[in-house]
Amino acid sequence: MNGAEAFVGTLKDCGVEVCFANPGTSEMQLVAAVDRTHGMRAVLGLFEGVVTGAADGYGRMADKPAVTLLHLGPGLGNGLANLHNARRAGSPIINMVGDHATYHLHYNAPLTSDAQGVARPMSDWVRVSTSERDLAQAGAEAFAVAQSYPGKVATVIVPADHAWNEGSAKVAVPTLPAPAKVPADAITATAEALKSGEGPKCLFLGGRALREDALVQAGRIAAATGARLICETFAARHQRGAGRVAVEKLPYFGEMAQAYIAGLRTIVFCGTEPPVSFFAYPGKPSFLSPPEAQLVRLASLREDALDALTALADALDAPAQPALVQQAALPPAAPGKLDAANFGAILAELLPENAIVSDEGATQGGASFVMTAGAKPHDWLQLTGGAIGQGLPLAVGAAVACPDRKVIALQADGSGMYTNQALWTMAREQLDVTTIILNNGSYAILNIELSRVGVQNPGPKALSMLDLRNPEINWAELSRGLGVPAVRVDTAEAFREALAEALAAKGPRLIEALL
Amino acid sequence: MNGAEAFVGTLKDCGVEVCFANPGTSEMQLVAAVDRTHGMRAVLGLFEGVVTGAADGYGRMADKPAVTLLHLGPGLGNGLANLHNARRAGSPIINMVGDHATYHLHYNAPLTSDAQGVARPMSDWVRVSTSERDLAQAGAEAFAVAQSYPGKVATVIVPADHAWNEGSAKVAVPTLPAPAKVPADAITATAEALKSGEGPKCLFLGGRALREDALVQAGRIAAATGARLICETFAARHQRGAGRVAVEKLPYFGEMAQAYIAGLRTIVFCGTEPPVSFFAYPGKPSFLSPPEAQLVRLASLREDALDALTALADALDAPAQPALVQQAALPPAAPGKLDAANFGAILAELLPENAIVSDEGATQGGASFVMTAGAKPHDWLQLTGGAIGQGLPLAVGAAVACPDRKVIALQADGSGMYTNQALWTMAREQLDVTTIILNNGSYAILNIELSRVGVQNPGPKALSMLDLRNPEINWAELSRGLGVPAVRVDTAEAFREALAEALAAKGPRLIEALL
Repeated sequence: MNGAEAFVGTLKDCGVEVCFANPGTSEMQLVAAVDRTHGMRAVLGLFEGVVTGAADGYGRMADKPAVTLLHLGPGLGNGLANLHNARRAGSPIINMVGDHATYHLHYNAPLTSDAQGVARPMSDWVRVSTSERDLAQAGAEAFAVAQSYPGKVATVIVPADHAWNEGSAKVAVPTLPAPAKVPADAITATAEALKSGEGPKCLFLGGRALREDALVQAGRIAAATGARLICETFAARHQRGAGRVAVEKLPYFGEMAQAYIAGLRTIVFCGTEPPVSFFAYPGKPSFLSPPEAQLVRLASLREDALDALTALADALDAPAQPALVQQAALPPAAPGKLDAANFGAILAELLPENAIVSDEGATQGGASFVMTAGAKPHDWLQLTGGAIGQGLPLAVGAAVACPDRKVIALQADGSGMYTNQALWTMAREQLDVTTIILNNGSYAILNIELSRVGVQNPGPKALSMLDLRNPEINWAELSRGLGVPAVRVDTAEAFREALAEALAAKGPRLIEALL
Repeated sequence: MNGAEAFVGTLKDCGVEVCFANPGTSEMQLVAAVDRTHGMRAVLGLFEGVVTGAADGYGRMADKPAVTLLHLGPGLGNGLANLHNARRAGSPIINMVGDHATYHLHYNAPLTSDAQGVARPMSDWVRVSTSERDLAQAGAEAFAVAQSYPGKVATVIVPADHAWNEGSAKVAVPTLPAPAKVPADAITATAEALKSGEGPKCLFLGGRALREDALVQAGRIAAATGARLICETFAARHQRGAGRVAVEKLPYFGEMAQAYIAGLRTIVFCGTEPPVSFFAYPGKPSFLSPPEAQLVRLASLREDALDALTALADALDAPAQPALVQQAALPPAAPGKLDAANFGAILAELLPENAIVSDEGATQGGASFVMTAGAKPHDWLQLTGGAIGQGLPLAVGAAVACPDRKVIALQADGSGMYTNQALWTMAREQLDVTTIILNNGSYAILNIELSRVGVQNPGPKALSMLDLRNPEINWAELSRGLGVPAVRVDTAEAFREALAEALAAKGPRLIEALL
């Protein structure tokens, strides 16, 4: 077999089942290898940001990597922003990036670039195959890296001749190390801190600590200690809703976040680091935890959160039943003009059990998160790295990973534009995604940020750079052009009807909510 | 003044007049500085690939840089593909890339990345400001680099605190060095080679050698020596049409290119390097020039092509009148179903004098280039670096640079999808661009390449990765959604009518040509 077949075959043996692809000429042997590998699904994206964002969504839901197929350095470049987000989410991803044949590189043909250099800033691990025989080995190593708990971004650069040369063979599936466990003395020390600490305390949760099983343990700890449960502002995957342990969300703006946790005297971190301001602002602090608080690291993102929380609960002799279990609760939706509040209430009311929400709702999406706290149990996925244009691709990947669950993409208009091509992939694969565009005709967050960074009296040129109204984007029309049926709504009644219709149907729909 | 004002003010003093922008929070002070700088136009793009591609188109037409405004490492990542193309075109561009405040970086907030690492692969020069006072100096240096003949990509990374801190000041406009001249002995040696060389000879032209004035000199050389004039396959800016010196185009596919120049015995290169195969293919050569030919470098891309060709023509005692002047000639257009041939003929017939064509027509665009050889004089801009998604942004930039000239974007459907957001900028700025989508529902080039790289009997999964028909993209609908009026045509008659209407109007139009 050729190198490409050995490589893709090894990945398949490892359990990789999906290839999100945007190939070019230098990847044709990889295309053929995916074609010939039984059980490897190929999903085409019409832009690389769709491909990498979909791989992120898939990784978050499947807890194993998909493989991407990207076209040399520039194609990888187009995928970097969503790889950045994936890396921040701790998602498992394997990138296979074609490059010129080794002997062709020095001719400096037009598409020649430093593919390794492009890969490095947004990959946890980068490897160029050294031969057709080495390519499969690189794949096995990439799989092991990608599966490092909770997940990493591993990039293999594949020179075209390594892909097409014959004489290669698959290699064995690597043994995966177990997730790193938090040592017993750290558990004991954390238990001591919670028991002896004066004043208000909390567990500050992120990463895998926001899965249902880990939250049960966090709820037991809350029951034993009275600690609040607070989570990071942008969570990769948060399992929540009625019957699950409820977690408060740290606000986005630094000063609000600072005020929110100001009274705490003991903060235990699990699956994440102490929160910092998303951006710097003149005269405002970056580090948000109160200086007088005792900060205790129970587990980093890369340590087994479930194990650590279970051990801590047991060390505290916590009751079996968690505290803070969320009651079913649906806020009322005011009729009339659609706004963030009645929008969120209707979403909560209609959210199907076990739904997956890809939330890039930005300024308009925050209310929906609050309103859905007591909705049916669901997974809530967020923009982890701040590189906008993640929401729609993430929904694609989640839907591929979980074909039996309804996916709802809650998408702000400005950020949705970066990767609107994802709609086409939803249509092609008939993915069960309901996309809701929150159209306020503005980079609304930036209008807020303009004054927060100290810009006074912005002129028309500045404001124009934050405005999406001239011309107004008609997302419904754009969606239909890409093959996804769409409607526009601007009242609570129309939104409820459109959402009910979309959720009852199987397959992609788009609702443009004019707010 | 603050650092941002000193920086942007210095750029304005240098002659930079346009900022293509996609800012975020960390760039708000730069937004405000652009706002306050009289004579600096701000053009918003809804995706960074639009921004960098527009800067490329602007640079090619204005022969001076625009400045881009990009949001940290991930935003720059989204712009890399078109920076790659710009760099290959030798276009002048200055990137200003915001980054976190220096003191905020070590907190590793979600958007933190190695912005320098992201910049390096696609920049000729990268600099991080060291203080608010240094920022203006970095701007002046970036301008000088960008204006290095014929142009370079210069990237300045701007920590937010350098932008907002007060106490900075503008710096002096740098003195620009003249373009490097080819030394006299190289001119003499080239003249000797052309005079003494046996057998067929040619000038192989690229870069600035394809401007009208340089081509007159090339035509004089042709008149004196009988040399053919051949140009690189993908030219940054080729001035052509009736009354200008005609240049043959090297075919794209390596073996066709090799055959095309097989008989030549002397090849003189000016503004470009000896041609190589765009990709490597098993068993096919990368280097295309005949082994028995004498290869003579007159001038590299970075040496003054006009000066070199003028000196060479004079050294050859060439006549004042060039040979190979193109006659006006319009091929006939067959009626009925639209195809590449009648499409190209109608385009040639209606092409306005002094039009600018942004050609990313791929497989369907080649005929148009041939057909328009004898059309009214025009500029033809191509995809120089092979990173698709350049055509529409390039048209945006060309239209901003040349508001009195009609721009025609000849855009393949597959590559157009990567940066479809450019249509919105055309609508917002009411740019005089007629976009023609060549919709064949396929990555047609890849279907050809699949067999060329040796893949036999591709299966349905492989073919699906090269197919855009399921679902069909309706570009007209997509265009209207982004604010550009659009029609679909599938006959020669309908295309002629639609093109005539679009060219008669001022402002953006889209014609979706179903081929």
